[in-house]
Amino acid sequence: MKFASVKNVVDLIGATGIEPLLIDLAAYLEADFRRWAAFEKAPRYASHSKGGVIELMPTSDGQRFAFKYVNGHPKNFERGLQTVAAFGVLSDVTTGYPQLMSEMTILTALRTAATSALVARKLARPDSQSMALIGLGSQSEFQAYAFKALLGIRKLRVFDIDPAATAKFVRNMALSGIDIEVAKSAEDAVARADIITTVTADKRQATILSDNMVGAGVHLNAVGGDCPGKTELQAAIVARASVFVEFEPQTRIEGEIQQMPEDFAVTEFWKVLAGDHPGRQGRDEITLFDSVGFAMEDFSVLRFIADRIEGTAFYSDIDIITAPADPRDIFGLLKTATQDQASAA
Amino acid sequence: MKFASVKNVVDLIGATGIEPLLIDLAAYLEADFRRWAAFEKAPRYASHSKGGVIELMPTSDGQRFAFKYVNGHPKNFERGLQTVAAFGVLSDVTTGYPQLMSEMTILTALRTAATSALVARKLARPDSQSMALIGLGSQSEFQAYAFKALLGIRKLRVFDIDPAATAKFVRNMALSGIDIEVAKSAEDAVARADIITTVTADKRQATILSDNMVGAGVHLNAVGGDCPGKTELQAAIVARASVFVEFEPQTRIEGEIQQMPEDFAVTEFWKVLAGDHPGRQGRDEITLFDSVGFAMEDFSVLRFIADRIEGTAFYSDIDIITAPADPRDIFGLLKTATQDQASAA
Repeated sequence: MKFASVKNVVDLIGATGIEPLLIDLAAYLEADFRRWAAFEKAPRYASHSKGGVIELMPTSDGQRFAFKYVNGHPKNFERGLQTVAAFGVLSDVTTGYPQLMSEMTILTALRTAATSALVARKLARPDSQSMALIGLGSQSEFQAYAFKALLGIRKLRVFDIDPAATAKFVRNMALSGIDIEVAKSAEDAVARADIITTVTADKRQATILSDNMVGAGVHLNAVGGDCPGKTELQAAIVARASVFVEFEPQTRIEGEIQQMPEDFAVTEFWKVLAGDHPGRQGRDEITLFDSVGFAMEDFSVLRFIADRIEGTAFYSDIDIITAPADPRDIFGLLKTATQDQASAA
Repeated sequence: MKFASVKNVVDLIGATGIEPLLIDLAAYLEADFRRWAAFEKAPRYASHSKGGVIELMPTSDGQRFAFKYVNGHPKNFERGLQTVAAFGVLSDVTTGYPQLMSEMTILTALRTAATSALVARKLARPDSQSMALIGLGSQSEFQAYAFKALLGIRKLRVFDIDPAATAKFVRNMALSGIDIEVAKSAEDAVARADIITTVTADKRQATILSDNMVGAGVHLNAVGGDCPGKTELQAAIVARASVFVEFEPQTRIEGEIQQMPEDFAVTEFWKVLAGDHPGRQGRDEITLFDSVGFAMEDFSVLRFIADRIEGTAFYSDIDIITAPADPRDIFGLLKTATQDQASAA
């Protein structure tokens, strides 16, 4: 099995450049969203404990199978650990053998950002030039780069309640070629923005944006609200917007629309790509991408990495699957072991 | 994260000796069966495709979380690959971080055999001396060693319809110290056996044992029938036996008892350990362990390996989880990458 370590993924991004990589990754995501019906859509498996949750997110397109292991542990921050960390596996369903294992903490940030930008490229006003970015945590730089790479957004007004997070963001983006203005408040950040991205980390029903803050024609990219009890937008904004989601049954539970009645109309994004839905229907329409992250996106990024590392030095082979000369002779692998024991006896 | 490769596991078994290792592993399994109520009991996740199935088998005891990835692809044999291959992960639920990843093809064979022998040690007649072993595929040697190590069984009568499998078994067991007699038929093998182990691989409703072949007082260890449509015993034998299972809801679907009415009485094995059930209740009783393999057993073997490799050379560390100095600064890991790009632009 191929193994793409954290260092391999970092080096691959370095060799490719983050913007070209996000553009190429978005093409993989788009190709997979376009064949939406091919994907197995299972609920994620969640093992809850006092400190957090461990999830397995599987899917398959009938050719390959992928799953992501991801945790969510709010108190990890106090331990100097990440709240969320992940790895994933891509397999060939013909043999059932795993082909690639990869770190997925960075890949999840990349696929989330590439999906956001892919959706915004379809739904935001085509003349969008500026974006407000609320929440400057671990996902923020990826979102900023994806919107620059895919939509040409070069003006950001940013805000976080934590000055340290803001300082980190500004420092990390110093060489990005993006014009960054630090706003005094979320309200200040969103004023006159064409696109608003919310990617805050607060684990509760927060009101990052209230209804009066969002003007006509805006595209909202709501990334932070992604589990039961965690939302970012006032319900009144959701009600005014045309809402686009990844996989409706999952978003009803995890997304901003958990605040809305069950019959509140939403559109699955793949329908826009397929031409089954027109997407934005006017300059004044508010479009909202209620992003929660779907297993297919993990599949796409693993498929992308598997293709990209082929023939490169950005992986190693790891010895995780037994390969006996006679496939029915697993014990033969141990012969030395048992013979040693027999001689000792 | 610690990684125990195929070679690491083989070397650990070599250093320990397979019999002492099976005895120690059985103690871990017994300890976990004794705290049965602590374990999360979720159905396995199965992704079916034309060629087979890929499964994720998760469980947790509230302290640690484990899952096994395992495939089942009958046609792999024609490709020179294993029908079943597996790997697994053990995590700490406090942080949600994975701690150990291990090959699990060999470990599954070990835990299955150790569980079989653990159960037989409780349920077989205490004076059992001989075992019939029907089916000499990849699991057979492990079963033989486990019954030698845990029950002192030194007489085996064996049978497989495939002479090549028989030859492989005899060759592999040459130095085992077990007296092996190759029988002419399954019927011939089971005559006068105290214990009968069936571990055939045929993926259908087979009749490896018919009712007339099983005499009073025998302990049946039925390992091969482990998925819907795959059984080894004639229903009449099951009806005559006192049936013990791992986790009843799973065995109703996957075990020999899939042939029986829904209200057919069975006993979960942990109850015998807990003293809630007496186990064998007479010399003439036929006891049957309808083994299908439960996620807790994978948890136990991973817990065992995690303890065993600590402080040894039988693992390596793999770089699968990002560890940024500031846990909210994943992007910081990529800085070199983006700066290179910025300088090039």
